[in-house]
Amino acid sequence: MNEAIHTILNHRSIRDFQDKQLTDEQIKMIVACAQAASTSSFIQAYSIIGIKDKEKKAKLAHLAGDQRYVLNNGHFFVFCADLHRHFLIGELEQKDVMTSIESTEKFMVALIDASLAAQNAAVAAESMGLGICYIGGIRNNLDEVKAVLKTPEFVIPLFGMAVGYPEEINEQKPRLPLEHVYHEEEYQQNNEVQISQLQDYDEIISRYYQQRTNGKRGDRWTAQMASMLENPKRMYMKEFIEKNRMNLK
Amino acid sequence: MNEAIHTILNHRSIRDFQDKQLTDEQIKMIVACAQAASTSSFIQAYSIIGIKDKEKKAKLAHLAGDQRYVLNNGHFFVFCADLHRHFLIGELEQKDVMTSIESTEKFMVALIDASLAAQNAAVAAESMGLGICYIGGIRNNLDEVKAVLKTPEFVIPLFGMAVGYPEEINEQKPRLPLEHVYHEEEYQQNNEVQISQLQDYDEIISRYYQQRTNGKRGDRWTAQMASMLENPKRMYMKEFIEKNRMNLK
Repeated sequence: MNEAIHTILNHRSIRDFQDKQLTDEQIKMIVACAQAASTSSFIQAYSIIGIKDKEKKAKLAHLAGDQRYVLNNGHFFVFCADLHRHFLIGELEQKDVMTSIESTEKFMVALIDASLAAQNAAVAAESMGLGICYIGGIRNNLDEVKAVLKTPEFVIPLFGMAVGYPEEINEQKPRLPLEHVYHEEEYQQNNEVQISQLQDYDEIISRYYQQRTNGKRGDRWTAQMASMLENPKRMYMKEFIEKNRMNLK
Repeated sequence: MNEAIHTILNHRSIRDFQDKQLTDEQIKMIVACAQAASTSSFIQAYSIIGIKDKEKKAKLAHLAGDQRYVLNNGHFFVFCADLHRHFLIGELEQKDVMTSIESTEKFMVALIDASLAAQNAAVAAESMGLGICYIGGIRNNLDEVKAVLKTPEFVIPLFGMAVGYPEEINEQKPRLPLEHVYHEEEYQQNNEVQISQLQDYDEIISRYYQQRTNGKRGDRWTAQMASMLENPKRMYMKEFIEKNRMNLK
């Protein structure tokens, strides 16, 4: 197993960081790695905002649901889908780019671009001995997050990433069995097979929690997912996207 | 510079592969790395379809705009946003999960999940000495791609990834200057500054093409982007997503 694969397989989200800040050199290297990711037709439709300021971090931590690791970390990144520079390009080159910019397709492209960049940043940081945690919680209150980060139209903050020196290292939660996620030649369409795979996985997850809690807790994954999904979250998202002129046409 | 960072910074898309197939061991390792990526609230909302069959690859190559490297490679992956198992979970656990599943928020979660997994797969493959190329072209004709891959409702094929032993290694195109993509503390809102950064980048890209073509070609990036964006592509995307019950509510 090579070093990169070792880093990747060893990933776990870190939520307790030492009080030690990243150097500018480390930050630049992480961003350079983010930028080295593939980008759809070279469109580079994302931006990264890096936050050192404790007050700004505290505001974001509160907006993300009072997550202490948004405040206490070595550096905080926010990854944004960004078609703002492409809007400017339309004006600069005097071409009508708005139908593209307002399309669901380009929204997807920007999301995918930002996510590929972010995962490169994550692997790079972890390969340096740092820990990371993605923060989807910034999508809880995007109007307020937008005000803190001063993002203009055509920019959607997608998620944060807390990076830093790990204080505590968590265990890894077992993923879905490979054969449930990976399909050979075509999608495995048999619902009964899928359900029985889900039930096998429930046993794995249940055992995992039992071992960690001395038998006190034995949640099944399907139950966790069902209770999460029966409470819809962030239902203002479409409205926020359209208000910010990315649109979903 | 450690090995993982070296791999990441050394990335370029490979479009010419040797006629040598990946082993099942290599495929499994790449998928295991994909699965090790972070996933929003452990939702694991993606699937990967791996294609060895030459006839299927040929069909997909044609649908993706006659891209020869979709046919000729060591293995072809398709990454899908997938809430199908969560739909099944709703039935299994007798909870109403449909409002969540049909939300723009969960569509974004599935896209981000799939993309983080894909970029782990990309880095893992490259660390093994393999080359990769993302194939957004499969979104040209998703109804037909869906028929080839037999994806059910709640599943959206997002992009392919051709993987294999590189035959020819391309140069790396210079990315946007770091200070254009990376903002400190808050988004750099000054449009004049952004435009002047874009013009600096145009010179870099123009020089890059001139050097590669002995002065025959000197495209500017902003001109490339403007002419790409004035021709909207894949405008059926929203309709396809809604037809497949992911929805964008």
